[in-house]
Amino acid sequence: MALKDLISKNRSYRRFDESFAIDYKTLERLVDLARLSASGANRQPLKYMIFNTPGECSRIFPSVLWAAYLKDWDGPEPGERPSGYIVILGDKSISEVFGVDHGIAAQSMMLGAAEAGLGGCMIASIKKEQLRNELNLPEQFEILLILALGKPVENVIIDQIKDGDVKYWRDEGNNHHVPKRPLDELIIIL
Amino acid sequence: MALKDLISKNRSYRRFDESFAIDYKTLERLVDLARLSASGANRQPLKYMIFNTPGECSRIFPSVLWAAYLKDWDGPEPGERPSGYIVILGDKSISEVFGVDHGIAAQSMMLGAAEAGLGGCMIASIKKEQLRNELNLPEQFEILLILALGKPVENVIIDQIKDGDVKYWRDEGNNHHVPKRPLDELIIIL
Repeated sequence: MALKDLISKNRSYRRFDESFAIDYKTLERLVDLARLSASGANRQPLKYMIFNTPGECSRIFPSVLWAAYLKDWDGPEPGERPSGYIVILGDKSISEVFGVDHGIAAQSMMLGAAEAGLGGCMIASIKKEQLRNELNLPEQFEILLILALGKPVENVIIDQIKDGDVKYWRDEGNNHHVPKRPLDELIIIL
Repeated sequence: MALKDLISKNRSYRRFDESFAIDYKTLERLVDLARLSASGANRQPLKYMIFNTPGECSRIFPSVLWAAYLKDWDGPEPGERPSGYIVILGDKSISEVFGVDHGIAAQSMMLGAAEAGLGGCMIASIKKEQLRNELNLPEQFEILLILALGKPVENVIIDQIKDGDVKYWRDEGNNHHVPKRPLDELIIIL
């Protein structure tokens, strides 16, 4: 698939067919895409945890905060929850700083997920201490980002932004609308 | 191209055929890939400056620091310098924080560059005040990252890491070697 099609397809999805199982190998292949991606000073301080069974996923879900702009929605209902997660960790025994390595890695993995027919969401709003306790995560690791993944069951529509309002919203047909700034607003000419 | 091939092809290149000209439109298309990529809380606070003529590129080059691990190399010689740059800015009038938005955007753009037959390097080591003065950049904008782009003339080889040494190096044939950690070292199982 042409990269622009892949990037266009790769929306942030928050509702899934939870009955769809994701192979461990599929998620491992996503981590391999992150492995081959750029890392500041080639330090490669990121580590990854993979969760793909219903039992494992139920350990991660309560620590994830969903869609701040949708005030009447607390996150996906049972049956529409992710069927896989990749937790991105920073290994402080390698580096105290992680720059934007996790952004680079997350984008590689999300594009890989889109190519594999999956979708999901990069989530930075995490109950980190709760998750650390749940996973018995050693202090060596900092929780940086979670990728929530599954078979999307929602329709995401990109709109032109209006009056600078960046808040995504849902219409009556439950389509998820995401306002994006136009290109000429993003390119600065001095 | 399959995403894994694109990610594998997308190495960090630092030597180019400087006589190769890059269209403005090509770089604008890369910014459009960034535009369509994820942004924390959909705030979209990133802005972009595009430089593609020899005169413009000569304004950016002196503010970029190259390849810290190659102690005997101060960066590409004339004739091997980038023929385009995209400077990624954070617009503080939109947000004071940029999270990993610039990592996500940079990865989308570098993959787009690889697809277009170009290559380059994400550079965070920037003489920021020097560049701000050169560009007369208003205080509203924070300089986050530079993408240096061109037609690569070097060969980059991914090696298995040895003894934890992440430093890239050049062999006698001037091939650039990048040691990467193996997958089983990156996946944490607790």
